[in-house]
Amino acid sequence: MLDRIKPDSTESGPLVVVGSVAFDNVITPFGSQEGILGGAASYCSFAASYFTQPRMVGVIGNDFGEEYVDRLKNRDIHLEGLQKDESGPTFFWKGKYHENFNRRDTLDIQLNVFEKFRPDLPQSYLDSKFVLLGNIHPSLQMHVLDQLPGNPFVLADTIDLWIEIERNALLELIKRVSLFVINDTEAEELTEEPNIILAGNKLRNLGPEAVIIKKGEHGAILFHEDGLFALPAYPVTELRDPTGAGDSFAGALIGRLASRNRTDFSAIKEAMLYGTCTASLTVEAFGCDRLESAGAPAIEKRVDELKRLISIS
Amino acid sequence: MLDRIKPDSTESGPLVVVGSVAFDNVITPFGSQEGILGGAASYCSFAASYFTQPRMVGVIGNDFGEEYVDRLKNRDIHLEGLQKDESGPTFFWKGKYHENFNRRDTLDIQLNVFEKFRPDLPQSYLDSKFVLLGNIHPSLQMHVLDQLPGNPFVLADTIDLWIEIERNALLELIKRVSLFVINDTEAEELTEEPNIILAGNKLRNLGPEAVIIKKGEHGAILFHEDGLFALPAYPVTELRDPTGAGDSFAGALIGRLASRNRTDFSAIKEAMLYGTCTASLTVEAFGCDRLESAGAPAIEKRVDELKRLISIS
Repeated sequence: MLDRIKPDSTESGPLVVVGSVAFDNVITPFGSQEGILGGAASYCSFAASYFTQPRMVGVIGNDFGEEYVDRLKNRDIHLEGLQKDESGPTFFWKGKYHENFNRRDTLDIQLNVFEKFRPDLPQSYLDSKFVLLGNIHPSLQMHVLDQLPGNPFVLADTIDLWIEIERNALLELIKRVSLFVINDTEAEELTEEPNIILAGNKLRNLGPEAVIIKKGEHGAILFHEDGLFALPAYPVTELRDPTGAGDSFAGALIGRLASRNRTDFSAIKEAMLYGTCTASLTVEAFGCDRLESAGAPAIEKRVDELKRLISIS
Repeated sequence: MLDRIKPDSTESGPLVVVGSVAFDNVITPFGSQEGILGGAASYCSFAASYFTQPRMVGVIGNDFGEEYVDRLKNRDIHLEGLQKDESGPTFFWKGKYHENFNRRDTLDIQLNVFEKFRPDLPQSYLDSKFVLLGNIHPSLQMHVLDQLPGNPFVLADTIDLWIEIERNALLELIKRVSLFVINDTEAEELTEEPNIILAGNKLRNLGPEAVIIKKGEHGAILFHEDGLFALPAYPVTELRDPTGAGDSFAGALIGRLASRNRTDFSAIKEAMLYGTCTASLTVEAFGCDRLESAGAPAIEKRVDELKRLISIS
């Protein structure tokens, strides 16, 4: 029986997770590692798997062996939507973090089978009530929403690239997003507003009922019609590889919401605690290693610590 | 009757505040102002005056007119320890903030009467139970402590200059400090530890029972033997002049502690809320203007807002 964090709801809402699956080569001040299982869909799905069974959508290439598929299966991730394209290798990314991890450079990027990827949802995914759109092209994110009937709760992430070259498509997408998640520098870039509070308000005016601006080690701020919420990050002392931190945050956050089948202000606040604590585990090792192996009790322990960290009583 | 925030203690502990008194010329992206009443002792005393009657220690020169003294008197600040040196003008500082306020340059500094300043305490100050040592030379800070009998609660602040040129004197001082307050870049400089959590632990090992590392708009972290506490900053949207933010934080913090006559973990956490909210008022106008005029209800309103901002329920 897989370890999952017990929801307080008897009926969780089904969750679909869409994004890239990749092999990464990562260079850090503490060493480097090659052929790491990565990509937003992997981190998001692993993180969400501590709360619910995520339905994964992505594409893998002819170099994606069964041992990698097994890692996803071992966390009970639903793989019907994981397409295998034998015409080429999996999406590849190589990056280097600089001293103190405050900057990273992309050294190489090969889209490979990801170039032709269309996130078509299997029939069995169409009743999903929660959607996590990883930071892929806004038109692909939109394609996912176009397939889903009803009115699911949609969390979308993005990256600076789409702000720079696909701003209009991104703005169209944001209108249909329930919870838009973005980091602080991207929020400033998208809104042209350096003050983070004003930037968050601007983003919410673009359509989403809620916006989260992530500030890395400084935590995150939630903007919601019911109020603001500022959450410090879990205090990490063993930073090894920040890759996937944002995806782990998003995956755990929406996994928690889906498992509780709730989307109100209070539920999003509570889910952010799970998001930051899950992400704090991810960054303590290369790739998904620590995230995969940590276990639900490790996340719950950190959530308890974080609650004490922010308690004024 | 002066507006003060009501303490829950009937017997507050007397507080002495020591630091520079200055005239500042400040240039910001929003404009500039000359001849601003400034200096750590001014900001600290104004901030503390919302909670208790601070006993001020500092030096003013022959250009410090009665209208400035009146501003201090109007907030019921005890001025017996404010020395007047007719031999020259008051300490002068001119600084410029760059776009987004993320960097500032000192354009001019004239020590004037501050050069010969010795912080000698009047007899009537010697029963002080709380001490705020502004960021003056560590040997002057030490001189203050040498005059005080008993075992007062000592909050000390510093600046990068003393870390660079008076490291040993600063380390000697820190041993005698109860609550050491420092910003994040200075904490890294002093400990040579880039991870803020590890840096805070290292600082606490130097002697103080508690350490606060300030992160500006990202809030502050308290390191205490009873635990950690992370507090986001009050969300400021009208930043006009950050000068004195740290001094206002420290002044309000120790003012609140003194008024409650408490120094335990829980009391320091609560006082940090008052510190960040008082500082948030300071930065919304040039110099001490907004700090002086805000009134106790404005601080209490922001503390209520901040409590909601960090509440997970």
